[in-house]
Amino acid sequence: MLRIILDTDPGIDDALAFFLALASPEVQIEAITTVSGNVHVDHTTRNALALLTLAGRTDIPVARGCADALVIPQVHAAEVHGDNGVGGVVLPAPAVQPVAQHAVDLIIERVLAAPGEITLVTIGPLTNIALALRRESSVAQKVREVVMMGGAVRVPGNVTPSAEFNIYADPHAAHAVFHAGWPMRLVSLDVTTRVLLARDQVMTWTQGAGKVKTAMREMMAYYFDVFAPTSDTPQFQMHDPLCLASAFCPDLITWEPAYVDVELAGSLTLGETVGYFKPSAHRPPNMQVSAAADAERFIRLFLERIDQTFP
Amino acid sequence: MLRIILDTDPGIDDALAFFLALASPEVQIEAITTVSGNVHVDHTTRNALALLTLAGRTDIPVARGCADALVIPQVHAAEVHGDNGVGGVVLPAPAVQPVAQHAVDLIIERVLAAPGEITLVTIGPLTNIALALRRESSVAQKVREVVMMGGAVRVPGNVTPSAEFNIYADPHAAHAVFHAGWPMRLVSLDVTTRVLLARDQVMTWTQGAGKVKTAMREMMAYYFDVFAPTSDTPQFQMHDPLCLASAFCPDLITWEPAYVDVELAGSLTLGETVGYFKPSAHRPPNMQVSAAADAERFIRLFLERIDQTFP
Amino acid sequence: MLRIILDTDPGIDDALAFFLALASPEVQIEAITTVSGNVHVDHTTRNALALLTLAGRTDIPVARGCADALVIPQVHAAEVHGDNGVGGVVLPAPAVQPVAQHAVDLIIERVLAAPGEITLVTIGPLTNIALALRRESSVAQKVREVVMMGGAVRVPGNVTPSAEFNIYADPHAAHAVFHAGWPMRLVSLDVTTRVLLARDQVMTWTQGAGKVKTAMREMMAYYFDVFAPTSDTPQFQMHDPLCLASAFCPDLITWEPAYVDVELAGSLTLGETVGYFKPSAHRPPNMQVSAAADAERFIRLFLERIDQTFP
Amino acid sequence: MLRIILDTDPGIDDALAFFLALASPEVQIEAITTVSGNVHVDHTTRNALALLTLAGRTDIPVARGCADALVIPQVHAAEVHGDNGVGGVVLPAPAVQPVAQHAVDLIIERVLAAPGEITLVTIGPLTNIALALRRESSVAQKVREVVMMGGAVRVPGNVTPSAEFNIYADPHAAHAVFHAGWPMRLVSLDVTTRVLLARDQVMTWTQGAGKVKTAMREMMAYYFDVFAPTSDTPQFQMHDPLCLASAFCPDLITWEPAYVDVELAGSLTLGETVGYFKPSAHRPPNMQVSAAADAERFIRLFLERIDQTFP
Repeated sequence: MLRIILDTDPGIDDALAFFLALASPEVQIEAITTVSGNVHVDHTTRNALALLTLAGRTDIPVARGCADALVIPQVHAAEVHGDNGVGGVVLPAPAVQPVAQHAVDLIIERVLAAPGEITLVTIGPLTNIALALRRESSVAQKVREVVMMGGAVRVPGNVTPSAEFNIYADPHAAHAVFHAGWPMRLVSLDVTTRVLLARDQVMTWTQGAGKVKTAMREMMAYYFDVFAPTSDTPQFQMHDPLCLASAFCPDLITWEPAYVDVELAGSLTLGETVGYFKPSAHRPPNMQVSAAADAERFIRLFLERIDQTFP
Repeated sequence: MLRIILDTDPGIDDALAFFLALASPEVQIEAITTVSGNVHVDHTTRNALALLTLAGRTDIPVARGCADALVIPQVHAAEVHGDNGVGGVVLPAPAVQPVAQHAVDLIIERVLAAPGEITLVTIGPLTNIALALRRESSVAQKVREVVMMGGAVRVPGNVTPSAEFNIYADPHAAHAVFHAGWPMRLVSLDVTTRVLLARDQVMTWTQGAGKVKTAMREMMAYYFDVFAPTSDTPQFQMHDPLCLASAFCPDLITWEPAYVDVELAGSLTLGETVGYFKPSAHRPPNMQVSAAADAERFIRLFLERIDQTFP
Repeated sequence: MLRIILDTDPGIDDALAFFLALASPEVQIEAITTVSGNVHVDHTTRNALALLTLAGRTDIPVARGCADALVIPQVHAAEVHGDNGVGGVVLPAPAVQPVAQHAVDLIIERVLAAPGEITLVTIGPLTNIALALRRESSVAQKVREVVMMGGAVRVPGNVTPSAEFNIYADPHAAHAVFHAGWPMRLVSLDVTTRVLLARDQVMTWTQGAGKVKTAMREMMAYYFDVFAPTSDTPQFQMHDPLCLASAFCPDLITWEPAYVDVELAGSLTLGETVGYFKPSAHRPPNMQVSAAADAERFIRLFLERIDQTFP
Repeated sequence: MLRIILDTDPGIDDALAFFLALASPEVQIEAITTVSGNVHVDHTTRNALALLTLAGRTDIPVARGCADALVIPQVHAAEVHGDNGVGGVVLPAPAVQPVAQHAVDLIIERVLAAPGEITLVTIGPLTNIALALRRESSVAQKVREVVMMGGAVRVPGNVTPSAEFNIYADPHAAHAVFHAGWPMRLVSLDVTTRVLLARDQVMTWTQGAGKVKTAMREMMAYYFDVFAPTSDTPQFQMHDPLCLASAFCPDLITWEPAYVDVELAGSLTLGETVGYFKPSAHRPPNMQVSAAADAERFIRLFLERIDQTFP
């Protein structure tokens, strides 16, 4: 049983990752920590609570995290995820409140309390994680693993030509995280942009379903209706669900060791994830990077599990 | 009575600032928070405790803070302050321990508990302060004022040609602090390098004195003996004590409003404090910057107060 | 008949581009201008003269160009092209000398003398071209077109994870060229890395051939024997010949308009070509970028023409 | 007799430097080369010709130079020097034309023709000089000395808080020049801002004078009337004349050896001249930097010589 803290900024695909986590018996969600990203932390926190309420899992604690990126002004992605972060879908009012503890403090406390046990699955900007590292550096030795959705190593970005949103939104936090010396896996656009749901597939699959799948249908409909026509990515990219699944089922992805750094100085390339794959003494690998994904197997796993748990 | 939290990395001139604070009736030290800077936070914390022990003021809580700068690798200044941070002087073993609470949490808690009451006096790198801001952004509205020793606005730096140590050691933290929108005053090298104690003056003044002044004498002797010959600053520069004094006695310094930013991208100028003094709509002043100091008055104040309290 | 000035740093694949140009009736080579790049301009100039001597085309003038990149220290690629730039192959002693005129002056003079007639085909760093632009800015209005081999727009680089050699070797020159407001086409690694000759193919094709093909065989043998084993690109990439061919046969390549800029500030991404493909008012397209190439057709064209002219 | 090429962008204080050069028997002006700077090279060339016409020295050749900075868009300083570069003063129509040769080619030709004889005195941006270096690198070994007005080493800049105009206007050119390995002296704002003419002094001195002094009076009147009220520098700073004088009378200035580099990457500090004065193995001095000037002696020299030659 993989004990995870899910650090997140829901976000439509974050919501899908939530439901997949709740539907996966290999995973025990210790807590959900929220952060500003796709939308402001006020919204992402409310969304996290509402999604758990919808799924009937208000037993899972939600801790509110950071509102602002470490150094640069906070950016959002409301054009992709809607102003409320979940495609304008009206979720049920949260039946619970966030815990009193701040996300950063919760991460530190839980990791130190269970050395080698906790996996951090991060599907938003890395602000909370960087703050936890700086506030208590021993966290780096006590985490089991960090599995991150973020970056675009050998492919173009999705915010700028070079940068992926989660890294771009807090590149300095990513820099701190990437250089912390702990076990990391990076699930990047190199694979997530190839793990897709088509509109028809979603509509058929969610036909006449229960409230969780209906919420998923509505959120993705926003994407298909509003965002897709303005972009060149007509299908729904399963960034965060793939990342979540790879935490407990790593062989969905082919991994490659690399030294990955974050560009902090570039005037055009801020937040680019630069990967060095050739073995090098002064740039030893600091993480495993996603090179390929078994998209078909993942999509099947995703659909089946949601069907079983949230019919 | 000014309620201050003193954020510090002692440090020889930090120690002098400590004693001045303890000798100043206008000031109530709520807590001392430590940070990596002149030396590692392990040492600066031990030094803070030892200095309070020496001064008989172990009633003041000390909270240990951050070990590492936000983004860049931590740098130290052991060549100036000695390996132990206090010029190799053997201070008494601390009679107390740090509080359990982390510096960042202490700052947040105390500031929120007394809105508009607490002045943060920072005489080290700004890592703790930046973390407090990011962990709890409302701190920015609740602090009375931030009075910082740091920067070199119109004069050369002391670590690189452009940068002063406290800013250079964590430029990203300084950036976060400078843009937090709270009341700030910056006591920079522009004035602190002109507020000096000469060797003879120190030796005469501390002749046959008690243990606090003797410790000060020994620490400064390290500076005069070891560092000064390698540098072009033969006299002891009262950076931190001047900053501390200006918190409760602002008219020791002539202030000038300015928009001050921190260079984060320069390959030669990392950590430079860039000051815009001309009124400008898109760069409105974000702080008061030290333009001149009444050195004579300050030195007199310093010597008299130490003499009175620690004869 | 396309009148071209070929700006070059031979270079093994440069040599292949030479021979293709000499074998292509659509092209009239007005002059060859040399530059430091794969190796120093002393070598590239000698190589250019020797290649023309080998091909019996010493009627074409060669003008020596710049030795050093505009701003950064000159880098070379001797590990790919051998210390002499042509894989250690001993070419015939040049039967002619370079012209007295400097490459930059030749470019300016010829372009101004035939407004709208001259195409600059650049298959090395862009130092000469940038200097011509700055020395005589009206050149930008008088050139027919600039067709450049360089950059890696949507794919990784070949010198660093982000940058291709010709741009990396003089990014500031590339910046000047990219923003000159003249017609440009960029033949980048996005396509050139997919236009390949395999070892067996080369060996069979050059079996018992004349001196030009034999020199090509030996140069490519160096690549296959020495460089390929250290890299992950076992086949020979036809960067420069493809670029040359696309100058007179543009439909070998599928082009896409884009605003392409060069990163000059990045600490990891210096020389990255950053392409903006979405229509944007403040980044209107400044060039046509190679999106795909008809590799089969190009290879056939290359082999056939060389066979016809240099059997 | 010092043989100089004066590279210039007149400019009011450039004009004063012209007249001082013409009035100084130690100096022989081989040629004047123009560059974009204070205003566009079209204007600076016309101004140079007009100033020589005014002074009756049309025997000195003027070569037009570069219109655009190497990398960044050209900036001007018309707010200081007026739209025509000479404070709106109507100078006589030039009695001669520029020579056919480009400034860069003239510099190269003259320097190579008289090895060790020519001093380059640069009082504008360094574009021409950088191009000469890159076009013909041996120039670096053949120049007698380069004496440059530019930079602000230990003091604030005059365009941005960190940068002086001549360097800021083409920082990449300055970078190339600073690292060329030739003898250099830098006359920077550190001294030029302390070498001043007051309004009354100018008005008295030029009362009832001839046409040269009257032109100087009118140009400076523009400065006093139009620019000075918007700035905090009410007196006229003799940047360029001091530089010119120091070429033939070096002991007007106290020099200090330093390694000086130019910031090219900073987002706030572009074009800052960063000086390293401490001896260092990996930053050996690359030039002599102005540390102090004998202002009184220089002003006397300036006034006397102008009085003698242009009464």
